Amino acid sequence: MKQLLCLGDFEELCKSRRVKKTLAVVCPNDEATLGALSRAAFGGIVRPLLFVCKPLDNVVLSVFGEVGAEIEMCADQDACCHEAVRAVREGRAEAIMKGSVNTDNLLHAILNKEHGILAPGSVLTHLALLEAEGHPKLLLFSDAAVIPRPSTEQFDSIVRYCVSATAARGIMEPKVALINFTEKLNKKFPQVESYIEIKRRALAGDYYLGSVRPIVDGPMDVATAIDRRCALIKGIASPVAGDADVLVFPNIEAGNTFYKTVASFARSTCAGWLAGAAAPVIVSSRADSEDNKYFSIATVCALC
Amino acid sequence: MKQLLCLGDFEELCKSRRVKKTLAVVCPNDEATLGALSRAAFGGIVRPLLFVCKPLDNVVLSVFGEVGAEIEMCADQDACCHEAVRAVREGRAEAIMKGSVNTDNLLHAILNKEHGILAPGSVLTHLALLEAEGHPKLLLFSDAAVIPRPSTEQFDSIVRYCVSATAARGIMEPKVALINFTEKLNKKFPQVESYIEIKRRALAGDYYLGSVRPIVDGPMDVATAIDRRCALIKGIASPVAGDADVLVFPNIEAGNTFYKTVASFARSTCAGWLAGAAAPVIVSSRADSEDNKYFSIATVCALC
Repeated sequence: MKQLLCLGDFEELCKSRRVKKTLAVVCPNDEATLGALSRAAFGGIVRPLLFVCKPLDNVVLSVFGEVGAEIEMCADQDACCHEAVRAVREGRAEAIMKGSVNTDNLLHAILNKEHGILAPGSVLTHLALLEAEGHPKLLLFSDAAVIPRPSTEQFDSIVRYCVSATAARGIMEPKVALINFTEKLNKKFPQVESYIEIKRRALAGDYYLGSVRPIVDGPMDVATAIDRRCALIKGIASPVAGDADVLVFPNIEAGNTFYKTVASFARSTCAGWLAGAAAPVIVSSRADSEDNKYFSIATVCALC
Repeated sequence: MKQLLCLGDFEELCKSRRVKKTLAVVCPNDEATLGALSRAAFGGIVRPLLFVCKPLDNVVLSVFGEVGAEIEMCADQDACCHEAVRAVREGRAEAIMKGSVNTDNLLHAILNKEHGILAPGSVLTHLALLEAEGHPKLLLFSDAAVIPRPSTEQFDSIVRYCVSATAARGIMEPKVALINFTEKLNKKFPQVESYIEIKRRALAGDYYLGSVRPIVDGPMDVATAIDRRCALIKGIASPVAGDADVLVFPNIEAGNTFYKTVASFARSTCAGWLAGAAAPVIVSSRADSEDNKYFSIATVCALC
């Protein structure tokens, strides 16, 4: 398998497929969603299946007509959400993207016990894949948007999803850094006990996935996780330190701060989605760039 | 008063003073501390007062001799810490810098009830001033290193120190952003109640400092606080959004993640110190760059 080493590789993979993945899009009435989606559809990344409750204007209809998009008219926004979820359940779509509808409304449809697409006991979490200028690796991180204070079992799910997404890129030994503000094992911090347990499970092989052998280590701070110089100066002897593929954050404030700080201060692109449901769900926020939305589409379609 | 708009302005201010501030340095036995310190001493930024328990080599002695540094020999590292603190108490030094000694040992001397320099009831907190390429303003932020989960009264002290340090730069209307992962006032998050109370105090004028009138707002995420485009797209109508001078973080994991992420991903320089004691204390870590240490010296000497 060819490794996917940059976001452009995800784009190429999608373009090279003979059968395009179908993306169910809920209420694509905003410019940024329509822009990213038309770029992805015209580029041969994806086949759109649009659920709308307001008529689309003629230009939009003709653009999406050209790329063979299907358009289903629904009664209202909630119906759009439910129909998109149903399309996944019925195998007519492989991923979902949120347009101009509240995330909560879409989550409601996804989490619906009878008609939703989250298996009982499954954990829904946010993953994001960062490509930053000057950094040699893609970095997958979680959770910047959904779980406020992960429990040990939620950390367990986060690690599994991250290992799975990194293995799907062809990385056979994903290096997972459990992030904190220090490398000390200070049990005053609630996540430290969870980290100890996650490392125990990792050593026991719980996160092996076929021939993929992840290495999990921490706690360590962000700089120690990704910067070899920093790991060296601190004398942290870990195969993960300075070379992480995955950053697991201790709480949502830290994960979100990482997300927003790289978006604001680094030249970077970030593809984000929700993992844990029967299909990946793109829930980009209004302030995300069109590039971020476009590469979110390419990434989920390559991984699903 | 001339505004200090970049870290170079702090350097210039120190150089222009007729009487240099004296910096008590504890165990300057590592290269990075000696490098930053000699640069500051030769540049006329500061007069060093060194507390050592291991003999310095002849080159170092001759370099620091040239700039009129005083050197005091102490029995051990703890004695170095205590003597540096005593120098502040006796008015012989205006700031302290940590060399190759554990932060805990130095804190022990600072917090000592009888001989220390933290007034009873005072809050010790970490402040850092960030200059990032492409960002038009210096950004002061707290707390990346000391207080795990600030209480309302600790947030109150953090805001006061930040306003004071920003006012000392000549900023008459410092804009303080209370950071969270969302702009929603979700009371499930412990810091939200504190933020509401801090904003109430700010509106009541509690943080006015002479003619300095800070504006405090939040919660908001990092991107909303510093990026006008993001604030605009989200429709956040606040004079702070997109234009913050100060970022107050909800917990140490988020503050530290911000610190380490800008250090790793942005072209940036960061000056850091502890506020709240009788003198500012520089506690740079081993992995900090010499530039960060040098500008920490310039910044605390300009502000004290």
